[in-house]
Amino acid sequence: MTDTNNNLFNTELISEVPEVVIQRLPLYVRVLSQFTNMLGGDVISSEQLASHLQMTPAQIRKDLSYFGRFGKQGRGYNVDMLETKLRSILGLDRTWNAAVVGMGRLGRAVVSYPGFSPEGFIINSAFDNSEKIIGKTISGLKVQPISNLTNSVEKLDIKIGIVAVPVGCAQEVIDILVEGGIKSILNYAPLSPKVPDDVVVRGIDPVLSLKSMTYYMR
Amino acid sequence: MTDTNNNLFNTELISEVPEVVIQRLPLYVRVLSQFTNMLGGDVISSEQLASHLQMTPAQIRKDLSYFGRFGKQGRGYNVDMLETKLRSILGLDRTWNAAVVGMGRLGRAVVSYPGFSPEGFIINSAFDNSEKIIGKTISGLKVQPISNLTNSVEKLDIKIGIVAVPVGCAQEVIDILVEGGIKSILNYAPLSPKVPDDVVVRGIDPVLSLKSMTYYMR
Repeated sequence: MTDTNNNLFNTELISEVPEVVIQRLPLYVRVLSQFTNMLGGDVISSEQLASHLQMTPAQIRKDLSYFGRFGKQGRGYNVDMLETKLRSILGLDRTWNAAVVGMGRLGRAVVSYPGFSPEGFIINSAFDNSEKIIGKTISGLKVQPISNLTNSVEKLDIKIGIVAVPVGCAQEVIDILVEGGIKSILNYAPLSPKVPDDVVVRGIDPVLSLKSMTYYMR
Repeated sequence: MTDTNNNLFNTELISEVPEVVIQRLPLYVRVLSQFTNMLGGDVISSEQLASHLQMTPAQIRKDLSYFGRFGKQGRGYNVDMLETKLRSILGLDRTWNAAVVGMGRLGRAVVSYPGFSPEGFIINSAFDNSEKIIGKTISGLKVQPISNLTNSVEKLDIKIGIVAVPVGCAQEVIDILVEGGIKSILNYAPLSPKVPDDVVVRGIDPVLSLKSMTYYMR
């Protein structure tokens, strides 16, 4: 199968694969690289994957079956091959530029976090609305006024907006990102924003994560 | 229906409700309180809920139907009633004690974050393995050696472990928490740990969240 066929194949599948499956693919990638680093094995079974993911082997086999046949019956998956293929499906075989909006304590922590760039996420711009912060250089980025955002999206090829503003102005900032053409938003503010159907939002909210565990603790 | 019946009812349902539904309940709670704060409305439709959650109204009605009948056909849900009921289902009508392990930059940010306690999550202890940090008082918590953990779990009624250690020792720390009797772990380290089936882990990893969006950006 050629690359062209692969792409065609994936594009056709986009609407069919449940979002929850897509959200699990990065977890598979993470376990596969852990497995390579720790054990150096070249084959991994769905049972081994499952033991790291609080899932059943059958769920994992079903998730992966959306994207073709990766393993041989009873033989497990080739670790490198599966990781490469999943990275390609997820679009992780290239880099993506991101802008941070909100350069307070949280935004500064985000731009100084060393985990993004090795994984292909390049924070190439920073925005704020405070006169005290605009113009300063933080972690190598000159903070721009939010009014520059729309122009910068195209000029700097920004694909992801990272929202690090207080909850009270998060919806407003998200509206500006959406109007500027951003379709992917990583939202640190503890609210569920309203966005058009073609915009994907992922939230980072530790309180929300805690609340999804207490059900099992009662 | 009495409270006792309610509890019985929920307990019987635990094994039947898919985990993905449980994970969405806190999102519903969040939108319901946003709705009360912003609009002051007393009735919300599944369409209004859906518009904040990138879901369909039918999905929301199906999720809620696992827990009984909340709304009247065509009339929407009573906001207060639904929020109260969901909080009770999730065990959010009480407080839960948590311990942070790892008091480096991340752990310090976690214990100083003001968002946990108003939502009923009380960080009542902090642990580290560095002689330089043990014994110091940070955000009102005296940092203890990890060897104290097992004793503290019972004495301080710790129900949640928050892992804020470097990725290289995260599995080891999680093993210690599990041996100490902790069943709920909030994991900031970028790895998928191996835990027994009765332990629930939620990860906070912005890179993982970014990777679940790139699929839609290709």
